[in-house]
This record gives sequence, structure tokens and C-alpha cells, in this order.
Amino acid sequence: MKNEVLYQKLAHLAVRRGVNVQHGQPLIIRANVRDYAFVEMCAKEAYEAGASYVDVDWKDTQLNRLKFQNQSEEVLKDIPDYMHAREEKRVHDKACFLNILSDEPGYMKGIDPLKIRACSSAWSKKMQDLHAYTTNNEGQWCVIGLPSAAWAKAVFPDLSEEQAYEKLEAAIFMTSRVNEKEDPLAEWENHDAELIAHAKKLTSYQFEKLHFTSELGTDLFVNLVKNHIWVGGGDTTPAGVYFDPNIPTEEVFCMPDRNNVNGIVHASKPLSYGGTVIENFWFRFEKGRVEEWGAEKGKEALDQLIAFDEGSRHLGEVALVPYDFPISKSGILFFNTLFDENAACHLALGRCYPENVGNGIHMSEEELKKAGGNTSLQHVDFMFGTREMEVDGIQADGTVVPVFRHGNYVD
Amino acid sequence: MKNEVLYQKLAHLAVRRGVNVQHGQPLIIRANVRDYAFVEMCAKEAYEAGASYVDVDWKDTQLNRLKFQNQSEEVLKDIPDYMHAREEKRVHDKACFLNILSDEPGYMKGIDPLKIRACSSAWSKKMQDLHAYTTNNEGQWCVIGLPSAAWAKAVFPDLSEEQAYEKLEAAIFMTSRVNEKEDPLAEWENHDAELIAHAKKLTSYQFEKLHFTSELGTDLFVNLVKNHIWVGGGDTTPAGVYFDPNIPTEEVFCMPDRNNVNGIVHASKPLSYGGTVIENFWFRFEKGRVEEWGAEKGKEALDQLIAFDEGSRHLGEVALVPYDFPISKSGILFFNTLFDENAACHLALGRCYPENVGNGIHMSEEELKKAGGNTSLQHVDFMFGTREMEVDGIQADGTVVPVFRHGNYVD
Repeated sequence: MKNEVLYQKLAHLAVRRGVNVQHGQPLIIRANVRDYAFVEMCAKEAYEAGASYVDVDWKDTQLNRLKFQNQSEEVLKDIPDYMHAREEKRVHDKACFLNILSDEPGYMKGIDPLKIRACSSAWSKKMQDLHAYTTNNEGQWCVIGLPSAAWAKAVFPDLSEEQAYEKLEAAIFMTSRVNEKEDPLAEWENHDAELIAHAKKLTSYQFEKLHFTSELGTDLFVNLVKNHIWVGGGDTTPAGVYFDPNIPTEEVFCMPDRNNVNGIVHASKPLSYGGTVIENFWFRFEKGRVEEWGAEKGKEALDQLIAFDEGSRHLGEVALVPYDFPISKSGILFFNTLFDENAACHLALGRCYPENVGNGIHMSEEELKKAGGNTSLQHVDFMFGTREMEVDGIQADGTVVPVFRHGNYVD
Repeated sequence: MKNEVLYQKLAHLAVRRGVNVQHGQPLIIRANVRDYAFVEMCAKEAYEAGASYVDVDWKDTQLNRLKFQNQSEEVLKDIPDYMHAREEKRVHDKACFLNILSDEPGYMKGIDPLKIRACSSAWSKKMQDLHAYTTNNEGQWCVIGLPSAAWAKAVFPDLSEEQAYEKLEAAIFMTSRVNEKEDPLAEWENHDAELIAHAKKLTSYQFEKLHFTSELGTDLFVNLVKNHIWVGGGDTTPAGVYFDPNIPTEEVFCMPDRNNVNGIVHASKPLSYGGTVIENFWFRFEKGRVEEWGAEKGKEALDQLIAFDEGSRHLGEVALVPYDFPISKSGILFFNTLFDENAACHLALGRCYPENVGNGIHMSEEELKKAGGNTSLQHVDFMFGTREMEVDGIQADGTVVPVFRHGNYVD
């Protein structure tokens, strides 16, 4: 394996800081079959950290495509009870979850989006009582990226297979802060501290709303819920275990008021949804609800996204990312939300994160909704940050605090 | 993929004749993650045949080894309920099962055999009520071999990696009757017809017992149960679907009387059990029970094999394979029972096949035992056939019919 040292470092980072597996705790890995060598490294790391067991849910994008091409909707929607029982046992065992992303972007192109929606909706419903475990950070979870030949080809279609892979590989190691010299765990400790400092400061302002404008025509007011909490860097479980849910992460994020978002927003990067790439799209919000939308490419998938459920027409997250941070500076469009969302300010349609409001993780769904939080079976990020993005924070007394100028924090 | 045409042919053979998946029937594939490309071919074949769904149980030998090295026996023995529920659903859905073997022989070397035994025993017990589905051929199942780098290295340790792979690959295609020119389905139809003819003739003799001798010192009397049925080639499910459980297969096999086997038998090939290779071993039987045994190498694993459960000390199968058949002629020791058992006459300790006695598949376990059939949670084949093996069939009236001379059928 070329660059084996770097892959070992990435596995070490994912297991020891990403999910931060504890002695006696199970680790569940979700990964593509083509990535078995890296998965084996992660499993070894986990056992060295004292994991009680390591289970892998293997995925094969080609089989997944064949499944949607050939199975009836009836079969696709029939999520067997044993799958719920499996997840239930893992939550009961207080497992942590590592998701290794290397999918070819748009690999589901051409598949009926209605079928994809029916299947993912059935899955979400079946697992509904188990979502809180990760959504509320009751257990550790982490998503990381891993280069693959198919992904590299989509990102760099004009390069040779080898060159494309090397370039994607370098970009993933760079943005994941993995290199020959430094200890990635120390790098992430420093970086998280910076994000946490930004989040603390923003929380202290308790802005009533944010005003976003960009050279693409965005002019959007996003009200925040009362007692909101900006979050950045890692998080800590109720048992006191620190972990980094996303590697890389460059964002600090907060909870919009689901009923108080107004204006127009233009996406600044494509969005991959259900395997289809949506390009140059926009939404017009009124009283928190998407009332109009459009896209130059992938409009049908965008329609599906919005029609998924009632909460899919409302925002669940608003996130700030400086334009000068490494992922943005790489200039690469990864066609993968984990990376692309950390290249620019973004919003998410769908489920909010309860941790973004005081006492949120102890609220019932009804209480959360009353507080202005959004509920949905999905959570879909899209990017709207640009080089010239400006953000103002507006306090209840009308005071305007400049937050972003020319795409970056004012201070 | 080199030799893609041959792999396509093997996938076609496995799916269309091996499991012979029917329109609307699910297919379950068990395979190593490293074999994803071939698994994808099989899945495509299955959907083309009208499979309702294809599920893959992925295996990773490295992870399996790590599991046994690191998990406590308590965790290893705890087979979760959802695993039983998953198998139960598949049996309920009347699925067929394709098992693709490519494991590195002896990959579990050095792992405590007691741990392996505890785990496989817990698995067998948990799944006990579901064994009949495949054991009694209620649904179609098939085991095939697929070359792998690790397997090739074990078989040809003195060759380069590439040469070893090519040689194992050629041997697997040859013994599986897959080549550029012929249609493998037609090849298997002819071959199965020959095996079926042998089985019919042997059944018609209704031998009381068989007498085996070999140049290794074997001198063994194996009584057969009354109303026994010799079986060879493929089989047919109660629903009338023909399938080939083993590709390759060269054997015709029958049911020994569990309480009436006497004499000594010397194995002619090593046996891989729980990942350990056992070499030059022998058993002395008295009234059907193994009373003495020994091995030059792997004695501890042999002890575990015999102590597994009560039925592991008795025979469940006796099988005839001519010395001149292709697998034997290849002269290769595959360290894999699917291939090695088809290179020579063999016996199996453990569970019998109910199809080998009249009305057997409708018998309760008690009735089967009363008829002389053996019950056990395992079934372990070992080879004892040689170049000079002689087999006589002895009928109830004392008539002796020569069956094998110099390792081959007399006629």
C-alpha cells in the first residue's frame, strides 16, 4: 500500500479522536468493500484501544445500484425487523459508529428518485426510535473521507486514473490534517480549540437573526431560536467522552427558527442527493418555509428532496465557514458534503441538532418544535458561502454586528 | 480483470446451475470482501434470472482473525438474536445460498482452538432449527471456489505471487469445468448424468457393508444403513428445482451406520479444521465410535474436532471418488475440502445427510438415529482414498462385489 504511513495515521485519528473508542466499547464501521485494507487498519487500532468488538457493515455501490435497478419498490421498502434489532442491540451496547466515505459521486444517476426516496424514507421510519443516539450525541460517531479511484475520477475527470487518485488522496490528507511530520491528534486539538472559541463568542451575542448577502444574489434573513448555542469542533457524550463527529470540520453551526427565515438563497456548490448531482439551485423562503425553488440541473431530485416530508421545507442548521480555510483554498469540488460543506457557509433543510438550543437534548420532539427547532427524517446540507459573502448579526435591540466580510470572519 | 470471460462463465454456472435461482427467489451470497468484482458478476446474473433480491454476507479473514485474537470468549459466544432472525427470514423467503470460497488455508493458525470451537458451537446451536433447510435440500445451495492471492501462495509457496495465482486459477477453472470453448452448463449436465448412473447402480446392490484397504494401512469395514441411497451429481428440492450443491463435485456418497464401523483408517491428505492444518492423521473405529486417533501435525485441533459433540466421534458420510478424476489428476493439494474431497474417497465425522436413506428427509432426529444415521452440529470431511485403494461391497448373503481396484471403479 502506497503512503501506508499516512493511512495508518488517518486510521489512528479516526479511531482515537474521531470516535474515540473506549475500553470495553464496541465499534461499528460502515465502509465500502473496496476499502477493506483501511478498514482492517481501523479495526486493529480499535482493538488496541480495548474495543469489545468491531462489526463492519459492508457496502458495495455496484450492488446498491443493481438493487435499485432490479428490486421492486415493495421489496425495497420492506426493511426487515432484524435490521432494526441489529441497530437496537448496538445502541444498547453503547457502541460508537465510524462511517468511511469513498463513494463515487452520482453513482445512482439514472435511478428513479422516487424509488430511492421510498427506500430511504422506509429506512428512516423503521429506525426512528434510534436516531437520537447519534443525533443527540449520546454515543460517539465520526464520518471521515477516504480516497477511491471512482471518486477521484469524478473530481478530476481530465487526469489519468493514477494522477486523479493521487490528487484526491493529497487533498483528503491535507484537509484531514494528516501529514508525515505532525501528530494529527495534536493538530485536531488545536484546530478544535479555535472553532470552540468562535462558537463561544457567537453564542455570547445571542443574535436575533443573521443577514446573509452574496455576489450570487443571496439576500437572506435567518432568525435563530432563543437560547441558541453555536457549536464547533468536537462534542462530548453524556458519559464525558470527547469525539470529533466530522473529520474534516471547519464549521460552527447553530439552530435557525424553523418559522422565521425570509428571503432568497443561491447555492454556491452542487449538491449530491440520492446519487444525483443538483447544480445551480436556489430557494425562496417565506416565514421559514421554502415557497419557490429552481435548479439548472437535477431539478427532479431537488423536488424529491423538498417533498421528502413536511420538515424538509424548513431549515434545521445554519453554519459559518471562512472562505480562506484549507478546504475552500484547495479549490476542489469534492461532490461530497463532508468536504464541500466545510468549504463554505451552508444551510441544511430538515432535522435540527438539539444540542444547538439550551436543554435541547432533553426536549421532546414537541418541545423542540415549540422552541423553533425543525424535525424531519432527513438532514441535507447545501453550500451558499462565497468569496464575497457578508454576514451581519442583528441583536434584539437592533444593534448590527459585522460577522463576515469578503467571505471571512471580521476578527 | 484478466480472464474476465472465464469469471463470467463461472458466475453464470454458479448462479444458473449451482444455486439455479428461480424467478422471484432471493439469493444470499457469502463471500470475501476481496472478491467484490466476482460477487458483482454473480448478483448481475441473479437479477437477470429474476431474483427478487440479492443479499451479501461479506467476510474478511483478517477481521475474523483480529476478532479471535481480541474478543473475549463471552463476547464471541454471544450470537445476537438478530442474526438468527436474519437467517430465519431468509429461510422463510425460500432463498437460495451461494458460498464463494477463497480463504487462505490455515489463516487462523495460532488462534486458540478452544475459542474457535466455543464460537462455532454457539453459532451451530443458535441456528439449529434452520440447518434442515440446506441439509435436507429444502432450498438450493451451492459452494464454489474462487482463486485468491493468499490461497495461491499457500498452495504454491515456491512460485512468484503472479505464477501461483495463475496456476491456482487454472486449476479451479479446470476442475470446475469452465473453459473458453465449452458451455459449462452442458458440461455439468453430462458429468452429473455419469455420477447419477454410478449412484443408481451402487444403490441397487444394497451392500451390507464396504471394505476399504489402502497402501497407507487402511483396513476398514463401513456398514451402510438399511434402505440406503447413494447420491451423486446434483439434487432436486421438494419444489422440483434441480441444483448442484458443490462445484466441483466428483463424488457419490452414502450413509454409514453410525454404530457399525470397525477398523483403522489413515487419512491420505491434510485437513484444515478451524483454520489449522492437520497432517498424517488416523482413526481406529470400534462399533462405529472413534476409540483411538493420532496426527503427526495439528493433534490438538484433531482432539477438538472429535470432542466437539457426541456425534463427532461417529461417521455421517462415506464417499467414493476415482483416483483418475480431474481434481486428483491435477495433483494439487488445495488445502480446501471442496476440492480435496473430490480428489479422493473420503469419510465425514458428524452429521449425516438424511437424503441418503429412504424417507430420511421426513424423519425426526430420533427416527434418523434409530435408522443408523448420525447427528451432530458439525460435518467434517477427510480424505483417505489413494492410488491403490481397493473397495469391496459385501452383500447380506456374503457376496463380495469388487467396486474399486487401483483407486478406480472396476467398471
